[in-house]
Amino acid sequence: MTSSSTATKSPYTPSAPPLTHLENDPPLAYPTTQYNYTSAQPPPRGQYYHQHEPMFHPGTDPEIIRSFGMVDRDQNGFIDDNELQQALTSSSQKFSLRTIRLLIFLFKNLNQPSLKIGPQEFTALWSCLAQWRAIFEQFDKDRSGKINTIELRDALHSLGYAIPQSVLQVLISRYDNGNGHRIELNYDEFIECGMVVKGLTDKFKEKDPHYTGSAMLHYDQFLSLIIPFIVCD
Amino acid sequence: MTSSSTATKSPYTPSAPPLTHLENDPPLAYPTTQYNYTSAQPPPRGQYYHQHEPMFHPGTDPEIIRSFGMVDRDQNGFIDDNELQQALTSSSQKFSLRTIRLLIFLFKNLNQPSLKIGPQEFTALWSCLAQWRAIFEQFDKDRSGKINTIELRDALHSLGYAIPQSVLQVLISRYDNGNGHRIELNYDEFIECGMVVKGLTDKFKEKDPHYTGSAMLHYDQFLSLIIPFIVCD
Repeated sequence: MTSSSTATKSPYTPSAPPLTHLENDPPLAYPTTQYNYTSAQPPPRGQYYHQHEPMFHPGTDPEIIRSFGMVDRDQNGFIDDNELQQALTSSSQKFSLRTIRLLIFLFKNLNQPSLKIGPQEFTALWSCLAQWRAIFEQFDKDRSGKINTIELRDALHSLGYAIPQSVLQVLISRYDNGNGHRIELNYDEFIECGMVVKGLTDKFKEKDPHYTGSAMLHYDQFLSLIIPFIVCD
Repeated sequence: MTSSSTATKSPYTPSAPPLTHLENDPPLAYPTTQYNYTSAQPPPRGQYYHQHEPMFHPGTDPEIIRSFGMVDRDQNGFIDDNELQQALTSSSQKFSLRTIRLLIFLFKNLNQPSLKIGPQEFTALWSCLAQWRAIFEQFDKDRSGKINTIELRDALHSLGYAIPQSVLQVLISRYDNGNGHRIELNYDEFIECGMVVKGLTDKFKEKDPHYTGSAMLHYDQFLSLIIPFIVCD
């Protein structure tokens, strides 16, 4: 499904999150050769295959397994915020630690007390980023690496999130540098905005199981739902 | 009600937010002497008294009017985030820009598009901080300059906010430096946490006018209500 070799040729990979900075590492930094991540077969030595749960589901895309091994630099079987930030940050995109933590918070196992993800959560996160990158490219018609507010609205809509324009304006106001130019978002900013929308929407839907568009929230639920988004920095 | 001269004598003023760093400014930096803020009479030259609305309400505590003049360094009649941060930050407390923006967001006039406050909103903010400082001192029984989680819960409760312990744990998790010590909050961290609670609670109450403890929220309302808290950084 994904290909890091394709990812390195263009700032826009069709589906894979970029791992460009890993290209420049010395060969020894590549766990690929150690663990044979390019094979769909279970690798012979990866400790999180043999000693730790959870493992990858059978049938997981080998490229995702390979990416996990590249991102999991300390090879402890979990991806933490620093590892994910290193993997997603390159010269052309700078994921803030806030965005990284939000990503991990949204995808981590609820039983996992700290901000880190294992193989199964990584698979979901990586697949989501791949889908969102494809959408970003689709709406970045002039391939400038940026999308404007209208394109952001349409991109989120195509991902299933119908956000009022007034809400979007508030959401993107943080990217207004005050120079009077129209606000445009890079890919990392698109992910930052999008994950806030996705996270809040997913949480809201849990309280609106019949998709009525409204939900009755108790004060405690309301605080419990929102505060994790606010402290993700 | 407040006294900045008292504020400078102790890290804990009974009611006034500290303005310690202003003490060391050269006399010319004090607009007090220019605008006669110590007098309850309208000052003779302050442009925001004569040219701009809104002005202070009649009967506003002269010390608050004086403080406004000290904080409003560029004397344009409004307090922006940088001015407020300078005023609240001292060697013993470092208000983050995030907290400062949250404070301004919570107190600014809804018709004011940018993050700044005029005299009337400043009066409300300053009075609130004075009240919260008094509460902080009350619960910092050993005058260590810190309060623990239980004291935070009790302090918020005394301010009218009954927060579940589980929510508080999430809220203060950002102050856990991972060294295994019990989390304790400085005054500025107390204000940061408290203003999130106050802001969310006030917004929730708007949707629960009969104080039932629950509110029906439409998805758009839900997003509109929360996203400003998330982008305040």
